[in-house]
Amino acid sequence: MADDKKLTPRAEDFSAWYNEVVLRAELADYSPVRGCMVIRPEGYGIWERMQRALDDMFKATGHRNAYFPLFIPESFLQKEAEHVEGFAPEVAVVTHGGGRKLEEPLVIRPTSETIIYAMFAKWVQSYRDLPLLYNQWANVVRWEMRTRLFLRTMEFLWQEGHTAHATHEEAKEETLRMLGVYRDFMEGWMAMPVVTGRKSDSERFAGALRTYSCEAMMQDNRALQAGTSHDLGQNFSRAFDLKFQSEEGTEEYAWNTSWGVSTRLIGALVMTHGDDIGLRTPPLLAPTELVIVPIYRKDEERDRVLQAARGIVDRLAEWDRRNPARLRVHLDAREGIKPGAKYYEWELRGVPLRLEVGPRDLEQNQGVLVRRDTREKRAVSLDSLGEEVAEVLQLMQADMLEAARERREANSVRGPISYDQFRELMAGAGAFVYAGWCGSAACEAEVKAETKATIRCLPDEEFRSAETPTHCLRCGGPSTDEALWARAY
Amino acid sequence: MADDKKLTPRAEDFSAWYNEVVLRAELADYSPVRGCMVIRPEGYGIWERMQRALDDMFKATGHRNAYFPLFIPESFLQKEAEHVEGFAPEVAVVTHGGGRKLEEPLVIRPTSETIIYAMFAKWVQSYRDLPLLYNQWANVVRWEMRTRLFLRTMEFLWQEGHTAHATHEEAKEETLRMLGVYRDFMEGWMAMPVVTGRKSDSERFAGALRTYSCEAMMQDNRALQAGTSHDLGQNFSRAFDLKFQSEEGTEEYAWNTSWGVSTRLIGALVMTHGDDIGLRTPPLLAPTELVIVPIYRKDEERDRVLQAARGIVDRLAEWDRRNPARLRVHLDAREGIKPGAKYYEWELRGVPLRLEVGPRDLEQNQGVLVRRDTREKRAVSLDSLGEEVAEVLQLMQADMLEAARERREANSVRGPISYDQFRELMAGAGAFVYAGWCGSAACEAEVKAETKATIRCLPDEEFRSAETPTHCLRCGGPSTDEALWARAY
Repeated sequence: MADDKKLTPRAEDFSAWYNEVVLRAELADYSPVRGCMVIRPEGYGIWERMQRALDDMFKATGHRNAYFPLFIPESFLQKEAEHVEGFAPEVAVVTHGGGRKLEEPLVIRPTSETIIYAMFAKWVQSYRDLPLLYNQWANVVRWEMRTRLFLRTMEFLWQEGHTAHATHEEAKEETLRMLGVYRDFMEGWMAMPVVTGRKSDSERFAGALRTYSCEAMMQDNRALQAGTSHDLGQNFSRAFDLKFQSEEGTEEYAWNTSWGVSTRLIGALVMTHGDDIGLRTPPLLAPTELVIVPIYRKDEERDRVLQAARGIVDRLAEWDRRNPARLRVHLDAREGIKPGAKYYEWELRGVPLRLEVGPRDLEQNQGVLVRRDTREKRAVSLDSLGEEVAEVLQLMQADMLEAARERREANSVRGPISYDQFRELMAGAGAFVYAGWCGSAACEAEVKAETKATIRCLPDEEFRSAETPTHCLRCGGPSTDEALWARAY
Repeated sequence: MADDKKLTPRAEDFSAWYNEVVLRAELADYSPVRGCMVIRPEGYGIWERMQRALDDMFKATGHRNAYFPLFIPESFLQKEAEHVEGFAPEVAVVTHGGGRKLEEPLVIRPTSETIIYAMFAKWVQSYRDLPLLYNQWANVVRWEMRTRLFLRTMEFLWQEGHTAHATHEEAKEETLRMLGVYRDFMEGWMAMPVVTGRKSDSERFAGALRTYSCEAMMQDNRALQAGTSHDLGQNFSRAFDLKFQSEEGTEEYAWNTSWGVSTRLIGALVMTHGDDIGLRTPPLLAPTELVIVPIYRKDEERDRVLQAARGIVDRLAEWDRRNPARLRVHLDAREGIKPGAKYYEWELRGVPLRLEVGPRDLEQNQGVLVRRDTREKRAVSLDSLGEEVAEVLQLMQADMLEAARERREANSVRGPISYDQFRELMAGAGAFVYAGWCGSAACEAEVKAETKATIRCLPDEEFRSAETPTHCLRCGGPSTDEALWARAY
């Protein structure tokens, strides 16, 4: 049950606001195990809808699901040099099983490249067996000391795509195709605009040739890396002897890609769309799209209003059968809770639409429809409720994306900026800053040490500024790349 | 790619046959980690369909999904005395994380009663918060020394339902409701008939008051426990202080239930329906229901036949849009593989229907439809293909259940049986034997030691014999219960 006091306003303490929304909207809770969270039904319902949408997109692009073991022999992790360096410090290790000490400790997967490519090597003989286009929905564990609900937890849920191709060209195409799928999902379903681009070497996935990411701007102007797609080259195929006989009869190493998004996206959703009242869920991802709240003052009104409300649910279900919209409707018929308290609770939880129906509304064969995003109210006829609801939901989905895009653009800085101005900005309100970079890891590291900002990505063409920056933000030397700089989660 | 040699016949070596089907139909593979398996896309596709069907049934009965941590503090497991005794010997233990030794070792969940009821205790204050009806799809780990693909692996995928109720009556109803859901799923979707009933005390879940199960007969006449549902009483609520204030204002412990099925069901499916040619998948669970194999001898036939085959796929998709059947169709247009080799491969994989289309068929606007279960062939007009396919699939689903039920009944023994006859039967062909039991654990243990058979359940009313057994199978004393005896997986 929701707590009745107000949320800390975002402007006062964004981080406190975030935790309060997650806990009080019952998306998640802390668990007795340090660093692990419990995803409660309200949060998991959003994740299920995310999964369904992504899974359909993966299948439409030719991928199939499989499941690989949770445990990875410690020796596997060590076969790819960069990979072990990146992940060894943060793994959980099983040393005992069935009451006995294990001969070789088992690592709990922090990601599954090693075990999956070891299996691919067993299955692939010839170019005819390629490409392999796999995806896995799974839990992974990375030992984190400073955790945040959804954003950074020791265990999290994710999907990891893993593919093997006969040529680098094909692998590169796959890497970018899946980056595009992620972007389509984040913009189309989450109503969260993202900047896509390539990571600098220091932010690359441990073991990849190139990493690409989707970067979203949260309401505190910090960036959140929402999904990554990696061109792994032949690094893992060489480490795991993933070879195939080519059409010409030669023996070649395969080319791999991997890509993933996680339950972190739920945190991104909250920080993109939440307001001081609570969560605002984009309709396409909302477990409930419309909540109906019956209003009555006297006992003699009660039966009439409740009966009418049930009738509305039935009519919407009937309308649903004739239309593809598949409305998700909930009637809040709880006794002993005032309508105002119900409004508060459903607004906190982010349900997109509310329909209030009282005795006077019913006399006029109408209800009052309230949008969660704008809180705009209007009377709608019960005869055309299905159409009206479907239309408003569609509009909300588009409006929420547009509002988020406008907010991002209003907080993005392009064009000449001095390093002092940049430092001030990063110490204050924050922003997405598009500025030059000389390409040196030293400049990048100094900016990070001095401002906590990092290169989020070297943005794709469409996100680059009209005027290409000429000088490095840090050293003032010639710029080789336009970079998106920001503090990040 | 499937291996071309024949499978070991079931009658020769059932166990070898089973492993060959699982590996060669590419349902699963061994992994480099001892005791862990890889579920390949063909197997995972069946699991996804099982998940979807069960999940819909769980939601229709008011349950919601959530996710609880993989890790359980070792101390939690010890709070319920029977539970720790049952599970402690088979847990995997994490002793190191992030490069350091942990203060308290973490156990990888073998099942989640402890962590879930600890969270429930945090969430429940009053009777108004009840019932809690939760389900979780997750991986669990039980350290097994003798593993078998799908049937017994160290890590497996499952769902575990966990509920809390205000009264024991309600909890008992829930326990039996979910047993019924499992039975409906197993018979309706898997075409696998089951006997439901209560477990004897020695086969009860560690920590439950009562355990109920669904028992299916495999083709070697051994029983497979396919799903269990537990009335946990107040055992866990007392251990985890899961209390609530009742409507009368008193403080009470909640009543819990838990219930689960796992990827073991895929093994059950293979051993229920497979034949000497390979897998036979019940249509409702088949990732592909119909495979179209184009036949051509000469190059000039090739284009015409392939084009027609693509036309058939399009027409079925079009038919699909007008009907709720949602056909899952695959066109096998691979080059360089003869039709016969394709038939072999799809029969091995258990695809329910095959449509062969060659030049002569096309002249007559028809194709040859072949059922996987009976291998019956018949010509069907391409004009009514959608209807024909949907009808045959429905028929197959029913026929497969009926065939499995007849097989089970033919191998069930009711009525007076001497212990010598019973021993002989269990040492030979095996059977489901309905016989008396005096209720003593000693008799039960002796039967197990002497014949490897166990009491699978004390069957529900509808499965009991017309003539109630009067004497205990083992000691000859008065029978207190009719029991279903069988060797089991």
